[in-house]
Formats: sequence, C-alpha cells, structure tokens
Amino acid sequence: MATETEIRFGILGCADIANKVSGAIKLAQNATVYAVGSRSLEKAKAFSAANSLGPNVKTYGSYEEVLDDPDVDAVYIPLPCGLHLRWAVLAAQKKKHILLEKPVSLNVAEFDAIVDACESNGVQIMDGTMWMHHPRTAAMREFLSDAHRFGDLKLIHTCFSLACGEDFLKNNIRVKPGLDGLGALGDAGWYCIRGILWAANYELPKTVIASEGAVLNEDGVILSCSASLHFQDGKIATFYCSFLSYLAMKITAIGTKGTLDANDFVVPFGDKPHFTTATKCWFNDVHTAWEPKPIQHPIGSDDLPQEARMVTEFSRLVREIKKGSKPEKKWPMISRKTQLVIDAVKASIENGFQPVEL
Amino acid sequence: MATETEIRFGILGCADIANKVSGAIKLAQNATVYAVGSRSLEKAKAFSAANSLGPNVKTYGSYEEVLDDPDVDAVYIPLPCGLHLRWAVLAAQKKKHILLEKPVSLNVAEFDAIVDACESNGVQIMDGTMWMHHPRTAAMREFLSDAHRFGDLKLIHTCFSLACGEDFLKNNIRVKPGLDGLGALGDAGWYCIRGILWAANYELPKTVIASEGAVLNEDGVILSCSASLHFQDGKIATFYCSFLSYLAMKITAIGTKGTLDANDFVVPFGDKPHFTTATKCWFNDVHTAWEPKPIQHPIGSDDLPQEARMVTEFSRLVREIKKGSKPEKKWPMISRKTQLVIDAVKASIENGFQPVEL
Repeated sequence: MATETEIRFGILGCADIANKVSGAIKLAQNATVYAVGSRSLEKAKAFSAANSLGPNVKTYGSYEEVLDDPDVDAVYIPLPCGLHLRWAVLAAQKKKHILLEKPVSLNVAEFDAIVDACESNGVQIMDGTMWMHHPRTAAMREFLSDAHRFGDLKLIHTCFSLACGEDFLKNNIRVKPGLDGLGALGDAGWYCIRGILWAANYELPKTVIASEGAVLNEDGVILSCSASLHFQDGKIATFYCSFLSYLAMKITAIGTKGTLDANDFVVPFGDKPHFTTATKCWFNDVHTAWEPKPIQHPIGSDDLPQEARMVTEFSRLVREIKKGSKPEKKWPMISRKTQLVIDAVKASIENGFQPVEL
Repeated sequence: MATETEIRFGILGCADIANKVSGAIKLAQNATVYAVGSRSLEKAKAFSAANSLGPNVKTYGSYEEVLDDPDVDAVYIPLPCGLHLRWAVLAAQKKKHILLEKPVSLNVAEFDAIVDACESNGVQIMDGTMWMHHPRTAAMREFLSDAHRFGDLKLIHTCFSLACGEDFLKNNIRVKPGLDGLGALGDAGWYCIRGILWAANYELPKTVIASEGAVLNEDGVILSCSASLHFQDGKIATFYCSFLSYLAMKITAIGTKGTLDANDFVVPFGDKPHFTTATKCWFNDVHTAWEPKPIQHPIGSDDLPQEARMVTEFSRLVREIKKGSKPEKKWPMISRKTQLVIDAVKASIENGFQPVEL
C-alpha cells in the first residue's frame, strides 16, 4: 500500500512503454502504482499481473474510473498521442497531475489546450522524455555551459533511428494517422529535437527547413525525415529521424572552444555510459595525432535508471504542490517548444521543404 | 641519393603542409625528395634545412627549374589552389606525375583542364587526401560494404571544423579570394564531402542544397557552411565545415543493418585509432541498456603514417607507369567528384540556398 509520502499513480492504458514506466514507478522511492485502467478490465488485470504490481493495485475497465478514483494523485498517460488532448484535459479537470508520454500531442494548439487545463487546475505536467533525467545529461549540460571548455555553441547534430520490421510499418500505432499520426517525427524525432533544444538552452530556432527525401507512408505518416534548424545568432542544428534505418541515437555539439559527443543519449549503452569531450586539443608537431586526446567521462546512475529518476522528480514536484508550491513551468515549456519545432518540420515537409519561420 | 626504384619528387613551394608531406616522402620506401623549388632560392634552402632533406637535395629559386629538371619523376604541389591550373598543367606537359594538394582547383572546369593535360601526357595525378590511405579507411569500407552487418546506406553526416585565430582569419591564404578562394569549403569541407562520397561508394548526389547560415568574409570567402546532399535512392548526407568552430572531424554512417562512427577520420587521434560499429544491437528486456553494445575496432598503421602510405601508393603507381602501365583513373575520378560537389555547394550558397542539380 502507498505510504503517506508516496505519490499514487494511475496508469491510463497498457501500451508497451507502460511496462517500462510502471517498473520505474515501482523503483522510485516516492511513488507507487495505485491503479491501472484499460478499455477492458481483463487487459488491466493482465498488465498488473505481468508487471507484478501486486494484489493491492486497483484495476479498472475504463480510463474514466481511474480519473474518478479520489486516491489517485497523478496519472501516467501512454496513450497514442491522438488521444492526449481528450484524456489529459479530463485528467487535469479531475485534478490529477500528469506524466504524459511523448509526443505530447498532435500539434501545439492541442498541447496548449492541455497546458491551459493543467494551469487552471493547478496540476503538474511533465513529458516522458527519460534521458533528461539521467545524471549524464546534467554533466553534459555543465560542459556545454562552460565558457572556457566549450565556448559558444555553433553546431548541433542529432539522430535517432530504428529499423522497424514489416509488421511495425503496417500495424503499429506510430504509423497510423488517427493514433500517433506524427510517425517517426513524433517518436524518434521528438528526441532529436529535444536534444537540439536542450543543447541550445531551449532557445527556439528562427527558421526550420525539412530536407528533401522525407519518406511518408501511403497514409501520409512520416517514416523518415531530416531537417535543419537555424538560430538567430547563426548557429545551426541538423537532425535525422527514421523508422527505416538502423538503431542510432547520437548527439554532437560543436562550440568555439570544445566539442561534445554521446552515441547513446536516449537509452544509454549500459550502467555507466559516458560522453566524450574535446577541449584545448591540437595536433602534435608533425600533425599526425591529437594532443591531448579527447576525454571520455563515464557517469554512473546510482543504480536508479533514468526512467525511475524521471518518476522521482515528477513525484517530488507533485509532493511540493500538495504542500502548497506552484507547478514547475519548465517542463511544459520545454514540451511545448519541442512540439513547436515538430509542427514546423511537418509544415515544411507539407509545403515542399520550404523554410518555416517560428 | 635516390635509388633506381625510388620515385624522385620535386616539391613546388614551401607551404606549411609541405613540411608534413616532405617527411612522408622521406618515410616512404619507394620515394625520395629530390628537389625543392620556391620563388626564392633562400626559402627553398631554408625549407630543405628545416626538414633535414640532406645536402644532396637540389634547391631551386623557381618552380620552372624543378619542372625542367629531367631527373624529377613527380611533383608535389602544395601551392594555393588558385595556382593549381597553371602549375599542374605545366607539370603534366613536362611529363611529371602529380601529387596535388586539395582542394584540387577553384572549380571543376579547371580540374578538367588539369586532368586533360595529365591524360595527354600519360602522367598520374592523385590528390593529397591522406586519410584515404589509412588502413582504418579500408577496414571501415569493408564494414560499409557488408550487406549483413551494415546493409543499405541511408544517412551520412560528416563535419570538419577548426577554430582559426584572428591572424589566420585575416591573413591566411585560405581566406583570400585570389589564393585558396574556396575558404573553409575547399579546405575543411573537402574532407567532409570526400567522406560522404567515399561512404556512398562515389555515387554522386542528384541535388545539393547549402544551408542558410553560411558565414562569408568581406571578400566573399566562405568561413563556415553546411549543406545536405540528396541521392537518387533517397539516402541523405549532411556536412558542416568551419574555420569558426572547435576542432572536430567526425563521420557517421547509418545503414539499414548497422552504423559506423569515427571521430577522427581526417587526422587520427593517435597510433592506433579505432572506429565504432553497431550491428544486431537491440535493448535488454526492460529497455534500459543495449545488448550487445557497439564494438570498437582499433586499427594500427604499422608505424607508417597515412601520409607516408599516400606517397607510397602514389609512387607505386608511378613506378608501374614507368614499367608500361596506364595511370590509375580512380584518383582523378574521385578528386573530380569531390570538386563537383564543392562547386554545387558554392553555387547553392550564391543562389540563396536553392537546390543545385548535379
């Protein structure tokens, strides 16, 4: 049973990702899975059993029942993003704090409606971008913010691709216009764009231009695309996201005084992932090698995976709100900016790869 | 003195890079520095002394004298690329084989004139792109060609940047329209574009689009730019080259079944550089780590640095020609394609970042 200080989660829907996040809620010291709702009670019960949520977890045959349970503090919403507007707004109206899977919505107008509902009802909203919460991310941020070691940001390149099989490309919700209608852009591209905005300290680009060569399925859902983002001060970012290429999740940032790389920024290779920096390097006398060489920085995660850290941070904020604090606006702000750039890339693809001003 | 089987090099000009390449000629078993020419005899003598070329090396106070020396088999031309047309054509007419520094010319029409002169006179031409000759490059090529481990190429990203000081940005030949007038595009960008073409097995893109945000100096020389290359089969490449960002030289290739990375593809970090591949990776059950993890492949260079390997291969070809073989056409072919893409990027910048068809 939940203790006094644990935030009690209701899970809306039994998507694959909910297995990982329910595990994260169990790992988080300040949270507990309190209820699971599905469109069918059997599915909710099966999910609870498969994830060993224990006999005390409530199971409901509808999402409404989860929202109507007065003991639920917060909901985790892993539903297809086409359903986010409806269920997130309703959750906010029921005073439930919201951990919302990405992409947060089909477009920024929908997300604004969700945020309005959260603000009116005084509830926290945070998106489910797990890597933001890894201690490596904070260490990388520290490097990027170092005027001596990194200097001014000039270029960011990110990619996230995964080679999806035939079944996925025909049947997965991520390729269905009515469900996760943003396809690879909303799924893999979300991380690429978040990585860029994160590196740029959440400055928005002034122009976004999708690259020719985007691949759409017969329903017009994006399976693969790339784009460049152009910022006021001249810095440039490019990204590539795809369901049609092999697994890759890389971020490179080049400043005036250093560079940063991580090849596993979304899901770390293992327990002690690293990032690589170069600073004050040049060549040896005969220009045949670097001196000094770039440095690898391994970062442990204290045995708590990034998704459990995400739940912990979200639950901490909810706890603070229960004690009288205001919701943390940083999280919806960065969700919104990510969505705004997604919308711009999509618009650029739709208008024949013309620039879109933000 | 040169042995019977050593190719006797004349060096035209005492550019910085000639120090490295004269050292490479000394290291190569089948080549020797035979003569050095400069516009001033003093400079030629000083270069010879600084590089310990020995008392037998001839020094000339003009380039013509090097070309008129009947004992010179081949010339290394490190002159600014604005002078390549004149001196490379003359060298070919004098039956000298040519190792030509990159960028090979100011535009592809000039390079075609150089190649015509080489073909008419039966001499070999090769550009000075050293990394092509590192054994790592062959090992990476083998991975990219592996249908099972890498599959079909989908994305290439390369970058080469170096943060040049104020003096360089004011006075270096690489920022002077009359000298190396292609600026960062011809210098750093050469490697980026060559890396892309190499990864694509020298298939040319059908369209090249420079990105907004290119930085030009007051004389119109490119200091920083990026572009995307679009291929017939849908694969995409992007690159970034700059004199205004920190030292970086990265290549990433993503296929349908694997990925490849090297962060030092132009000048290796040290004696035993590596490249990294991922293939047959996915996540563990709870999606918190990769299984298996990507693999690092360290490659030694047998103590012979890549620039000495370049000289060795060039000299081997010259030796074969002396014995009756025809010049190897691969080398001018890949130089020409690299130049063609450089021209297209430049044209795209000049026409306001519009697509340029190749």
